[in-house]
Amino acid sequence: MTAEIISIGDELLIGQVVNTNAAWMSRQLNLADVQVRHMSAVGDNAEDIRQSLDLALSRTEVVLLTGGLGPTHDDITKKVVAGYFDSAELVMDEKVLAHIRALFQRRNLRMTPVNEAQALVPKKATVLWNDYGTAPGLLFERNGRYCVVLPGVPAEMQHLMNERVLPFVKSKNKNATIRHRTIRTFGVAESHLFEKLSPIAELEKFGKIAFLPHYAAVDVRISVYSDDARDAEARIRAAEEYILARAGEHVFGFENDTIEAAIGRLLIEKKATLAVAESCTGGLVAHRLTNISGSSQYFDRGIVTYSNAAKVQMLDVPEEILQQHGAVSEECAKAMADGIRRVSGTTYGIATTGIAGPTGGSEEKPVGLVWVGVATPDRVFAQKALFAKDRLVNKERFSQMALNLLYRELK
Amino acid sequence: MTAEIISIGDELLIGQVVNTNAAWMSRQLNLADVQVRHMSAVGDNAEDIRQSLDLALSRTEVVLLTGGLGPTHDDITKKVVAGYFDSAELVMDEKVLAHIRALFQRRNLRMTPVNEAQALVPKKATVLWNDYGTAPGLLFERNGRYCVVLPGVPAEMQHLMNERVLPFVKSKNKNATIRHRTIRTFGVAESHLFEKLSPIAELEKFGKIAFLPHYAAVDVRISVYSDDARDAEARIRAAEEYILARAGEHVFGFENDTIEAAIGRLLIEKKATLAVAESCTGGLVAHRLTNISGSSQYFDRGIVTYSNAAKVQMLDVPEEILQQHGAVSEECAKAMADGIRRVSGTTYGIATTGIAGPTGGSEEKPVGLVWVGVATPDRVFAQKALFAKDRLVNKERFSQMALNLLYRELK
Repeated sequence: MTAEIISIGDELLIGQVVNTNAAWMSRQLNLADVQVRHMSAVGDNAEDIRQSLDLALSRTEVVLLTGGLGPTHDDITKKVVAGYFDSAELVMDEKVLAHIRALFQRRNLRMTPVNEAQALVPKKATVLWNDYGTAPGLLFERNGRYCVVLPGVPAEMQHLMNERVLPFVKSKNKNATIRHRTIRTFGVAESHLFEKLSPIAELEKFGKIAFLPHYAAVDVRISVYSDDARDAEARIRAAEEYILARAGEHVFGFENDTIEAAIGRLLIEKKATLAVAESCTGGLVAHRLTNISGSSQYFDRGIVTYSNAAKVQMLDVPEEILQQHGAVSEECAKAMADGIRRVSGTTYGIATTGIAGPTGGSEEKPVGLVWVGVATPDRVFAQKALFAKDRLVNKERFSQMALNLLYRELK
Repeated sequence: MTAEIISIGDELLIGQVVNTNAAWMSRQLNLADVQVRHMSAVGDNAEDIRQSLDLALSRTEVVLLTGGLGPTHDDITKKVVAGYFDSAELVMDEKVLAHIRALFQRRNLRMTPVNEAQALVPKKATVLWNDYGTAPGLLFERNGRYCVVLPGVPAEMQHLMNERVLPFVKSKNKNATIRHRTIRTFGVAESHLFEKLSPIAELEKFGKIAFLPHYAAVDVRISVYSDDARDAEARIRAAEEYILARAGEHVFGFENDTIEAAIGRLLIEKKATLAVAESCTGGLVAHRLTNISGSSQYFDRGIVTYSNAAKVQMLDVPEEILQQHGAVSEECAKAMADGIRRVSGTTYGIATTGIAGPTGGSEEKPVGLVWVGVATPDRVFAQKALFAKDRLVNKERFSQMALNLLYRELK
């Protein structure tokens, strides 16, 4: 079964909003063995919506539209799609209206006429009940092809996909199988990994192979499309074995696994604990580590010591180090890592100190310079690197480097 | 001038990667007065790439493709587009080859044959020199319409857009003007804001108006398309005045302004300082505050006290509070906010304690419960809220609530 996603909203076309909905939807559709071949975005413009819908229905079995179902005048999707399916007449759905009233009451908010109008639905559409919001989803059918219309609010869209759309799609799509497997590596360049896995034709006997480079990782993805689930799974396993045999030493995880999750598993295995001292990463390392459910088992604390005074007071960094070498130095990174480990009484301590930018750099210590310190039961050491000028990208890369250094130490 | 963006890569269609490139590109094109009317994504599939390109060139003046220029076998964009423009013959560009060699030398990496092949370019294309990577950009022209091909690596794509594509586009697009203005509000529901600004027809005399609800904010955006820059700017100003006169008390910023940036401005204005104590947000509040360039002027430190021991040791939270009320309580939130303020000697302190989930909840203290504490020179108080089940969404909402509470206190 094939599907196409059309995202509606001027905010997408002017780049105000990143289209995370389309990515989430295609992931879920793939898990339901539905192949997404096209995704597109158009503005809140009747003609563009109609044309995109028409093209999509000409080449795809299920078309999913999101966005433009809100209460304000700029939300035109319902009207346009109803017109496309010759169902321009809207009728008041009393059950939906009662549901909207109840939602407003629960939040102690006064209801307005535009909220009431959200309960108007096209006669020919099936209502997809929206527990979480005021805009119901809609399902249209024509010549055995389907069109689903969902609100653009992520939580509401996800709820409707999980509870209404995916069960419906699965009931219509019984034979196809799609399997993906992603193997995550780091410490190896994309072209070198490619070489290690060559001849690729050998590997592609099992399925389609893709290489995906990131900041500090290169992923290899295997995709198998088959009409037999057992065959698909056997191919995935064979490809995985091929890759692990040739590049296993670079593999740190699978699928959406992250270095912070891998660290968590290793710390639990070693019954070890961790504390973090951050300067330039400003809390991002702690944020990433605590994104992992269950991190309270090993993550004791993080201290963001932005001021020099905080470094001295909280981490026992000697004032002489700050005076002689400055905060961005090997000595300070080591003192911070050692300090956070001692203060917290944890097995490991890591620390970051650098210049995230865009200002604050000098010739000797330019923007993008970072020192990462690591303290283990056996030793304290630091490593430096030089990245780019962008503050937010630097924070990401600095944090990735700190986590990588710890990971290697734990592995 | 109109443009269309086509993003290429199976990773987009299976939802493995969110398409941030398309959002960034459309934002830059809008700033160059180019209207993006369609964005689409297709897989690494020759037929789908050709069809999308053909449709785009039939309705748009500039088509921008990204992705699929890497060194590995799954990158087919260059070959397909060259074929589409009857330029299948690739020739070795010696300058590009020398550049790739130099890049590998600088990084101390061995070059492989697939890297060399990146210097092969279609005869009919203009090379867009890529300082940052091994894949050059390409520019094709046919009947006064243009097709630009860029690598999908964000840093390289952005470099080529800024240095090569946007200057070219601007030189071809001298008369059009596009202006957007986004006004950010919070503390008011979307439908109520709509009512405050009604009749919308009055406001739409100036331009197109859109309402964009987020987690804890509702944006109003005005868009003006004109062939006269002064007229466009006057309309934007008039619409802004209309909105500020009717809903000014809810406005906290403009454009991409964030609550953390607004807090920073207020703290600088008051010559005040801030420290943060976090439990459930795990560093995210500090991370957001330190995303602001210059935050070292007012942000003193953040402490992520995940363990109870850390709360007692670092923040002077009385053990009796933890025993009697637990860590997720009004008393603990207040003690944490007060503690971080006293320990740091800052003007303000804020604290978060809650249950991010997905596990760790109880009937009395369910997943999604958060207490936020605020300590000012005058008082210490706390507020609670109950959000959803998703760990990462909860961390975002908890952090937004903490920043909102502080913002109101500062305003």
